Amino acid sequence: MKHYLSINDIDNLSEWVKEARILKSQPKANKNLGANKTICLLFFNNSLRTRLSTQKAAMNLGMEVMVMNFGNEGWALEYGDGTIMNQNTSEHIKEAAQVVSQFCDIAAIRAFASLTDKEQDEAEVVLNGFKKYTSIPIVNMESSVGHPLQALADAITLDEKSTKAKPKVVLSWAPHPKALPHAVANSFVEMMQLQKADFIITHPEGYELNEAITKNVTIEHDQQKALENADFVYVKNWSSYTDYGKVLNQDSNWMMTKEKLGSAKFMHCLPVRRNVVVEDAVLDGEQSLVIEQANNRTYSAQIVLKKILENL
Amino acid sequence: MKHYLSINDIDNLSEWVKEARILKSQPKANKNLGANKTICLLFFNNSLRTRLSTQKAAMNLGMEVMVMNFGNEGWALEYGDGTIMNQNTSEHIKEAAQVVSQFCDIAAIRAFASLTDKEQDEAEVVLNGFKKYTSIPIVNMESSVGHPLQALADAITLDEKSTKAKPKVVLSWAPHPKALPHAVANSFVEMMQLQKADFIITHPEGYELNEAITKNVTIEHDQQKALENADFVYVKNWSSYTDYGKVLNQDSNWMMTKEKLGSAKFMHCLPVRRNVVVEDAVLDGEQSLVIEQANNRTYSAQIVLKKILENL
Amino acid sequence: MKHYLSINDIDNLSEWVKEARILKSQPKANKNLGANKTICLLFFNNSLRTRLSTQKAAMNLGMEVMVMNFGNEGWALEYGDGTIMNQNTSEHIKEAAQVVSQFCDIAAIRAFASLTDKEQDEAEVVLNGFKKYTSIPIVNMESSVGHPLQALADAITLDEKSTKAKPKVVLSWAPHPKALPHAVANSFVEMMQLQKADFIITHPEGYELNEAITKNVTIEHDQQKALENADFVYVKNWSSYTDYGKVLNQDSNWMMTKEKLGSAKFMHCLPVRRNVVVEDAVLDGEQSLVIEQANNRTYSAQIVLKKILENL
Repeated sequence: MKHYLSINDIDNLSEWVKEARILKSQPKANKNLGANKTICLLFFNNSLRTRLSTQKAAMNLGMEVMVMNFGNEGWALEYGDGTIMNQNTSEHIKEAAQVVSQFCDIAAIRAFASLTDKEQDEAEVVLNGFKKYTSIPIVNMESSVGHPLQALADAITLDEKSTKAKPKVVLSWAPHPKALPHAVANSFVEMMQLQKADFIITHPEGYELNEAITKNVTIEHDQQKALENADFVYVKNWSSYTDYGKVLNQDSNWMMTKEKLGSAKFMHCLPVRRNVVVEDAVLDGEQSLVIEQANNRTYSAQIVLKKILENL
Repeated sequence: MKHYLSINDIDNLSEWVKEARILKSQPKANKNLGANKTICLLFFNNSLRTRLSTQKAAMNLGMEVMVMNFGNEGWALEYGDGTIMNQNTSEHIKEAAQVVSQFCDIAAIRAFASLTDKEQDEAEVVLNGFKKYTSIPIVNMESSVGHPLQALADAITLDEKSTKAKPKVVLSWAPHPKALPHAVANSFVEMMQLQKADFIITHPEGYELNEAITKNVTIEHDQQKALENADFVYVKNWSSYTDYGKVLNQDSNWMMTKEKLGSAKFMHCLPVRRNVVVEDAVLDGEQSLVIEQANNRTYSAQIVLKKILENL
Repeated sequence: MKHYLSINDIDNLSEWVKEARILKSQPKANKNLGANKTICLLFFNNSLRTRLSTQKAAMNLGMEVMVMNFGNEGWALEYGDGTIMNQNTSEHIKEAAQVVSQFCDIAAIRAFASLTDKEQDEAEVVLNGFKKYTSIPIVNMESSVGHPLQALADAITLDEKSTKAKPKVVLSWAPHPKALPHAVANSFVEMMQLQKADFIITHPEGYELNEAITKNVTIEHDQQKALENADFVYVKNWSSYTDYGKVLNQDSNWMMTKEKLGSAKFMHCLPVRRNVVVEDAVLDGEQSLVIEQANNRTYSAQIVLKKILENL
């Protein structure tokens, strides 16, 4: 593997999960692997978990880490070909990408969807720009379309907590006051298709994800029916994909409750709005896996960086 | 000691000061103590001295350091219990605190007073939130109520510069155009009560600090009288505590001058507004200890981190 | 050498270039030199290349690096003598500089020209303030007047790519929608006067640089004539120096094109606005050296830090 842009860059998910769990038990065992290697973490959007966990993972591997916020430390980049750059953009992705690659061995990038321009979002101009114009490996720290470090952490968490050969896993849409991207849901759906599981998505009509991603996954608009006998319930809001970036409804009946959850384990990528997406009783109860999911972000990043370093 | 939230978390101040002075003479002597340990410095407010000195102290102990600005790199946190989070806050302190603790061994936090809501400020929601919801040690890098790393640095400076068994130390209020918190003054007052000293506070009427902190300390409204025969004069502005967060007066007669200072040493935590809080002649003269106070911030942080690391 | 404020702080440019090229071939060879030494990178303005390359150079030498953005992490500094600081500035350069020097062994500083106050810009209040009030070495990461790390990287690039004993080098002004500083052009001109080269500057009338810097350099207002038989063309916009900080024209006839360039190599410090300063065909062609110039920023910073460290 050279780049880690999507969950589909993993050649053998169960093997990676197994190895990540070994790393988790001995996080500093590979501290020589990254010696004299540098990673740049480039943030075009804010971050808490991803910032700290990816930095931690790199340090666990002995790498040197440089963090840069493009928003307030850099300037606006241009992505269009042939643009006469006499407006607001100061540097073209062609130069920025090549320049960054002079200073580091791996670049990890966060660049969210705009949610206003579907075509541009799906083109993944930032991530693909860096991939196209550099020779170094690129790691996706959440792009317009996917969040594969999160999905890999979720796979590790499922593996740790699952007691069945084929658990029932439900991805359940939740209300939210703001328009959120599809990245986390997309990567989770992609990851689940690499798993042995009975996997169902439930959401209100109008909230269909990209069909190219959901493919043959069962979609059930009746949340109650979808949740029956679930072992794991992954809750997440996303805005409409069809009516791109719109908040079609905020129906609080879709909020996850302890009652609806039954005996299933609760998962969410965080940050989460309490009593909007999910009620307190779920997050404060013993069925919640959200903190362990966050913890596994370190080992998800660490296995990705380890695979890349071994391949440099 | 687990947490360092207040000067009162120090079991034996004179012992700590002694040990900090030894660290100062050999700052890198304990470089193995922090190996493979990570500290997160979390800033909810701006910082110069605290940012650099705490980072330096951690590096002196061989720790890995991750710095995060919540303001422009993260998002607004919610502190209320049971809140329906459909407004501006994106993540609850319960999750944020637990998540951060997955990625580091110690968390150091700066979160200033609002100066608009006394009750909330005194509840120290940020610092206490992190303390309540994590299992890792928390270090106060200036909270609403206290700045114990500064007060410990001040204790080191007093110890270095004092020639008397029981010096006279005066905390003298100074004018300032903006409303400033009480944190530095509070911690200095608490620290002085652990010292052998003749300690007096002088300020205009209406600027009384929290009585629970000043306890039996002498308060003298006549600045000239308070300053008589002083060995050390610690100058600091704070806003009104009674009329919470208000600037009651900016009377320049309270500014510290070379004439008023006499032969005493001058102390201030910095940053300081020249010719408003104190005149140039004092800061530029040989009686000023402000740069040495700043220098001692490294060793104050280093002794605190050393004590915590030894206890992990 | 103690400070690196200007290209003229280099005692022997060709010797430094030679040594920098050796560093480039073995970047980690001096990793012990900076052990237990700390550098603070202080940014009063945004940065991409300088931020990453200087950090990388310091890490290559084994130094510990602390990065601080004064804009959003610190506060406004006061530079005037005797000011009554009751307005917007919170700390005087006298204290800030001395304080920073308590926490690091070297301070590198970026502080751009205002382009509104020529006298203040030329006084280099930030850089000279730090120099005046600290005892530690100061490195210029682009000041009002100069960008000597860039010019040294350019000298390395010229040395690598030159095939003649005395190449013809042209500095050619280019149009730009915004008012840009003179720092890069100034340092390039100063550097070229230390080289064996046939050096010419070409720009529209009214764009004369400071005569104290251009001295006896040939200035040719006819761009076509200046470019004849050029081996290297360094393109850069700057605002008017005489009519200080003004954009006098944006004449696109001054844009560099593949046709104008002929067989010369193209140089630019980046960031560059495509199809305004230079057309795509140049940047995307094989004559462009801009990425190698950026790469050499690491070794330019590394030789500077190495010289300073050897002298500490």
